[in-house]
Amino acid sequence: MEAPDYFIVVYHILADDHARAEETALALSIEQSVEMPPDAVPEQARHSIAEVAELKQIEENRWLVKVRFSSSTVDGDPLQLLNVLFGNTSLKAGIRLMDVDDEILNAILPGPSFGISGIRNQLDVNNRPLSCTALKPIGFSATEFGEFAEAFAGGGIDLIKDDHGLFNQQSAPFKDRVQTVTRAIRKGEERSGKRTLYFPNITGSADQMKIRFREAAEAGADGVMILPHLSGFSVMQELARSRELPMMAHPAFAGSYVLSPDHGVAPKLLFGKLWKAFGADAAVYPNAGGRFSFTQEQVADINYTCRSVNGSFVSILPVLGGGIQRGNVKRWADVYEYDTAFLIGGSLYQHPDGVEAATREFQQELEHHV
Amino acid sequence: MEAPDYFIVVYHILADDHARAEETALALSIEQSVEMPPDAVPEQARHSIAEVAELKQIEENRWLVKVRFSSSTVDGDPLQLLNVLFGNTSLKAGIRLMDVDDEILNAILPGPSFGISGIRNQLDVNNRPLSCTALKPIGFSATEFGEFAEAFAGGGIDLIKDDHGLFNQQSAPFKDRVQTVTRAIRKGEERSGKRTLYFPNITGSADQMKIRFREAAEAGADGVMILPHLSGFSVMQELARSRELPMMAHPAFAGSYVLSPDHGVAPKLLFGKLWKAFGADAAVYPNAGGRFSFTQEQVADINYTCRSVNGSFVSILPVLGGGIQRGNVKRWADVYEYDTAFLIGGSLYQHPDGVEAATREFQQELEHHV
Repeated sequence: MEAPDYFIVVYHILADDHARAEETALALSIEQSVEMPPDAVPEQARHSIAEVAELKQIEENRWLVKVRFSSSTVDGDPLQLLNVLFGNTSLKAGIRLMDVDDEILNAILPGPSFGISGIRNQLDVNNRPLSCTALKPIGFSATEFGEFAEAFAGGGIDLIKDDHGLFNQQSAPFKDRVQTVTRAIRKGEERSGKRTLYFPNITGSADQMKIRFREAAEAGADGVMILPHLSGFSVMQELARSRELPMMAHPAFAGSYVLSPDHGVAPKLLFGKLWKAFGADAAVYPNAGGRFSFTQEQVADINYTCRSVNGSFVSILPVLGGGIQRGNVKRWADVYEYDTAFLIGGSLYQHPDGVEAATREFQQELEHHV
Repeated sequence: MEAPDYFIVVYHILADDHARAEETALALSIEQSVEMPPDAVPEQARHSIAEVAELKQIEENRWLVKVRFSSSTVDGDPLQLLNVLFGNTSLKAGIRLMDVDDEILNAILPGPSFGISGIRNQLDVNNRPLSCTALKPIGFSATEFGEFAEAFAGGGIDLIKDDHGLFNQQSAPFKDRVQTVTRAIRKGEERSGKRTLYFPNITGSADQMKIRFREAAEAGADGVMILPHLSGFSVMQELARSRELPMMAHPAFAGSYVLSPDHGVAPKLLFGKLWKAFGADAAVYPNAGGRFSFTQEQVADINYTCRSVNGSFVSILPVLGGGIQRGNVKRWADVYEYDTAFLIGGSLYQHPDGVEAATREFQQELEHHV
């Protein structure tokens, strides 16, 4: 898809009155494009100056600004797109990045290759929310992770991901872990009679990630997990272009962008639209009411954005984690509806009858939701 | 250097009373290590559980926590170190990462190869603050950037960096830009009789950065600039290990980590100690009183951390930008003292007698500071 000549970016800014809002909006458009006084920009570069396309008050001290950027300032580069969206402006208080046109994302980025329907097809589960758990803790051997993975699969879990802290530690090196866990899941599936998908964490240097992606595919893993705010976004979209395995994005190190209502990036834009554009097929983020700082409304908004179609990009799977417990899954499934995966970690490990029994109960909570 | 068995990380947390502070500190130590209820952690992984080593009140609602992590949870991986420092905790309000032991950084990361003294040696300038400017705007051709670069060098500027928005746009492709600008600077130096160092922006995918690093070195550039919060931190430390060219780090997309006093990462830790550990020889960040949101005290703190020696890591050069103007450089030089570079962009381009005359005035302001 060819890039449009221009694209619109939406920000919210804090300002006491219209004059200050105008000043901030203008400064923002300059900062994110030519970064110099417009009257000092020579004729041949004036097309690079971004323009304020709209400014309107939305709350007493809050304004919505639409800025129109020339696509030539990005020129197809995924990182420079993020830089134009929020590079230097990230250093200014009272400005929040809210949205960006689908068209520029469609033109520059790969988007998801599988999305919700691809993951559901792998599982052959189409009528209920999905279950997910994490292999933990750090310090376990590959064999020990394998034992747990077999029990989770035996109990019929849909998705298993690595804990986000599992990299390539000597205690459970990546290749050994992915091979052992994948084999163990196949054994567990014989007991459950259904598929369990495994998403090992491939985060590392770009070179390491390319190797681990390959090792994951060769070992028979069903997808990969990546921590884009640690790995960087470039390698994520490079790997997504292979369209070989679904990719689950995890929010480690991302929280600072989304926690302030007056600054940063809207969570639904970051975890929903931007991750999707960079290739995520599933997005992990914290549920409300758990040990993290999100409201139910924010979570519903992120869910909605994940499940939306953005131009040529299909809907992706919300994976809600962060303190969901056995026993309250059904309640959350009622709140968020069926195109959701619920990630339960700790409370499965603590079940008195063991992990496999705990997983069966978890599955039953979801199946009753049909 | 071998990694210590354990390392200490310092956080500030908001809490109303001692009981809540204790609860938050404990939850933090769990979240950043095993991420599951400690009594569910099997014997063979219990060494991975982090411990609260100290908790003390420092303000009415603010507490200092020291957490002791086992180095085995990181096992030498630079990204997993960042993950342990602030991965999931980034998603919790009211927790700020303040410091980390030098020893673990020294053991895992390359640190700076040149530092302040290396950059001063390249310039043969040892008795005054340094001058810096940026090539801009996006949309100029390599030839046009070359003309400005020659004028800056002719005026005697110490350091020229690319504007952070210059990637590999068709308007001025990287290789052409770095070759043209480097040649132009050599011409300008004939008029000034002194060295001018050029730091082109190599940010891109890891593969592109390795190629651009090489192209920069071959074209005779004196260093490279990198936007680690866009490129990711892994490639930064990989390139730093070559110890071939000094590296300047730029804070694009980093602001959300440092703007809140109650959350995120202390600016002096991020821009000072962590960037240094990942290989920065010079750190660009916004000055107080300009168009960004930093206080003079914060800037002085970052300067101090840059200039400190951290175990085996030498001091690096603070490069203060973001709205410093011709005419007030001397004032800021008095405030921040001589191991500082002052980055002036816009106000040099606007001088009625042109860029070369503007640069000469800028240099004179700094030379009078001796």
